[in-house]
Amino acid sequence: MSFARQVGILAAEVYFPRHFVDQKDLEKYDGVSEGKYTIGLGQENMGIVSDREDVNSIALTALDKLIKSYSIDLSKIGRLEVGTETMVDKSKSVKSYLMQRFEEAENFDLEGVDNKNACYGGTAALFNTVNWVESSSWDGRCGIVVMADIAIYGKGPARPTGGVGAVAMLVGPNAPLEIKPTKQHYMRHTYDFYKPELTSEYPVVDGPLSITCYFEALDNCYNGWRQKVKKNSPNSSFSCLENLDYFCFHAPFAKLVEKSFARLLFSDLRCCPEELSKKLGKEGFDSLEKYHNITTADSLKDKTLEKSLTTVAKPLFESKCLPSLKISKNVGNMYTPSLYGCILSLLSTGKLTGGEKIGCFSYGSGLSASFYTIEIHNGEKLNKINKVTSLIDERLNGRTKITCADLVEFAANKTTSEKLKNESFKPAGPVDSLESGTYYLEHIDSKWRRHYKTA
Amino acid sequence: MSFARQVGILAAEVYFPRHFVDQKDLEKYDGVSEGKYTIGLGQENMGIVSDREDVNSIALTALDKLIKSYSIDLSKIGRLEVGTETMVDKSKSVKSYLMQRFEEAENFDLEGVDNKNACYGGTAALFNTVNWVESSSWDGRCGIVVMADIAIYGKGPARPTGGVGAVAMLVGPNAPLEIKPTKQHYMRHTYDFYKPELTSEYPVVDGPLSITCYFEALDNCYNGWRQKVKKNSPNSSFSCLENLDYFCFHAPFAKLVEKSFARLLFSDLRCCPEELSKKLGKEGFDSLEKYHNITTADSLKDKTLEKSLTTVAKPLFESKCLPSLKISKNVGNMYTPSLYGCILSLLSTGKLTGGEKIGCFSYGSGLSASFYTIEIHNGEKLNKINKVTSLIDERLNGRTKITCADLVEFAANKTTSEKLKNESFKPAGPVDSLESGTYYLEHIDSKWRRHYKTA
Repeated sequence: MSFARQVGILAAEVYFPRHFVDQKDLEKYDGVSEGKYTIGLGQENMGIVSDREDVNSIALTALDKLIKSYSIDLSKIGRLEVGTETMVDKSKSVKSYLMQRFEEAENFDLEGVDNKNACYGGTAALFNTVNWVESSSWDGRCGIVVMADIAIYGKGPARPTGGVGAVAMLVGPNAPLEIKPTKQHYMRHTYDFYKPELTSEYPVVDGPLSITCYFEALDNCYNGWRQKVKKNSPNSSFSCLENLDYFCFHAPFAKLVEKSFARLLFSDLRCCPEELSKKLGKEGFDSLEKYHNITTADSLKDKTLEKSLTTVAKPLFESKCLPSLKISKNVGNMYTPSLYGCILSLLSTGKLTGGEKIGCFSYGSGLSASFYTIEIHNGEKLNKINKVTSLIDERLNGRTKITCADLVEFAANKTTSEKLKNESFKPAGPVDSLESGTYYLEHIDSKWRRHYKTA
Repeated sequence: MSFARQVGILAAEVYFPRHFVDQKDLEKYDGVSEGKYTIGLGQENMGIVSDREDVNSIALTALDKLIKSYSIDLSKIGRLEVGTETMVDKSKSVKSYLMQRFEEAENFDLEGVDNKNACYGGTAALFNTVNWVESSSWDGRCGIVVMADIAIYGKGPARPTGGVGAVAMLVGPNAPLEIKPTKQHYMRHTYDFYKPELTSEYPVVDGPLSITCYFEALDNCYNGWRQKVKKNSPNSSFSCLENLDYFCFHAPFAKLVEKSFARLLFSDLRCCPEELSKKLGKEGFDSLEKYHNITTADSLKDKTLEKSLTTVAKPLFESKCLPSLKISKNVGNMYTPSLYGCILSLLSTGKLTGGEKIGCFSYGSGLSASFYTIEIHNGEKLNKINKVTSLIDERLNGRTKITCADLVEFAANKTTSEKLKNESFKPAGPVDSLESGTYYLEHIDSKWRRHYKTA
């Protein structure tokens, strides 16, 4: 036997909540300068869930959307795994909750569990599923990957970088979105963002360190990936500008993605200056050339370099990367599904028709990161994904705007360990305003068991 | 390209703590009848860690033991992943702590993160690593899998089923312990054992449900596995007795494993009564035959059937399964490493010389379970594993016995979220008595960052 061919994403769906706050409203409510969140962070709106939704319910909703949008036969699924960092149980997996959806099909033979490493867990789940399809254990069935997180911060500068969402994907051979085998990982022990206070939904964040870690991981992944590609195809020259049509990033906020895309030019400057010069033209290239020999450490601190890079990169950013930020700008940081929300945003433009190559950067604090590429193949399956994703705009626009006071109330009503110690828990959030088919938390009983219904 | 061949475990090491309590002492201390823990549960001793060791430190210790025992070159490792359910951070992975060990080798390119589903996470990590070696993403390097847990219960009937341990394994092609591709999984949403109280180290357990779930998963996995094997080799007949030389189980306590082994005869009774009859002889078989048509639900409740099965199975249990329970009986439940501690116990007998087939049952509450087989291949690599595991007896015997009062003090001193909210944390447990090379917690600083040293 040999490898299954062209393994990747066969189908995908996204879930984002029905409620959002406008970042302009949040600027006023927080009393910060106008534009701090909208221009400074590049964010427009932020998705919000009440105590009616938790990580299990949003994962169930995304899985259900995938099944319905693509009429998936659940008896033909052989793997199911989850990426998340929104823990509601230290032992039980979110995957085990999703198995409820397989009861009717009486299919309990599904490899895979939960993958955990901050925002990176979804990518680990995807890679595992692709590897499984290519392994001798594969039995011809497809796999499903679900990524889900609720990103929430207390009052303060991090709050506008919250968000909520879930993505579900069907994985198998002959896929319209092929995951290419050459990947570069960067994994290291850091304390940039972590959640050691198990009673709290909020992380401990070292903001400046987190940004440095993200760039450092990007540099290492992108350069390492390029070296591997060169090794495999010694006669070709590689730079982001020459070889890849689109770029999708893990997106905590849009401005960081813009800077990250620009930073790829800095890598190109050092590895393939000639190709970069051809692409940028004399004026653009000249403004960067003086940085050719700057150390990596200095380059991470140099604000003038950062400014030059983003200025020169702007037109390329707008064509190759900006179309991927639609969901991110309007829903916020979704943690594990973030990168995949960007890929779906890009698909939602309807511009991908086959032959395109997408560079993907996945990052999770702590830290784990990967750079890899997706190649688009045309055909009926791509048409179907394009059709499903074309509805994303309508779904974003059909949401309900809530006030910042509501946002604070939503957060305050959340269940806590303290509450659960003494009684069972009845959520107070609205059910009527949920989209039809959305799973929601009905109650948590005195044995801490969670019970769900669908709206 | 085609699959890498004979992929499996190339090398393995186990870590169990230096301190233990005698289960006979615990019977007296708890004021229960003599033999309740030693005969009723089948346990002899229980491993204990003080506040000096946490899940990260025991994982680091096991990894370090693996590297040193087999002189592993860390620049040649391409994957590292972890199975655990002992959470000290909701976001950061244990894998990221293990990356500290790769700093010196400057190797940060390692796929994989943490796998979470109660005691099953280690098996998920192992399967993922095998699949990766067989995938197109594999670059010729080996993978490492680390499983680590601290199983601790408050005062009460579950306390004697605690334990602590970690296993680290090197995974790659041409392995002496080959993981065969035919596997049967059983995954379902249950609330048999879970940890929803994030502030507590202790689980919420529904004891009777947990045992039923374990047997139900075993029935489904074993029967499903047999059907798959039959489908792949239609002319052969399969029963546990005929085709497999040894059996290793996830072992919460030894008595459950004895009953589980016996329950395989019940599956054989319904699927291949003729082979079973040949193996057991007339008298043994006659005592079981009347149960041929009992429903599965009734079979799980029938104590006379259970007694008949364990009686008939006793000699087979003693030859095919008991040798695997050495670590489990003396260290206790290690959660994710439990099954792998059993495999290493079996190897430590020195009896495996090649050609043997081992049936393996992995179970994690919530629930996730798998049945699969390992085939032993002789050669230098097997000799090396046999040599390393031959030291297990000496290491078990070289431990320090502590009193039950010490056990309670060890537990009481543990760090809690409440303590960490107000101050940094200095563990109080003994360092002098740790085995040389053991990683231990030096302190947790005011930003909840954990700092480790080696004894």
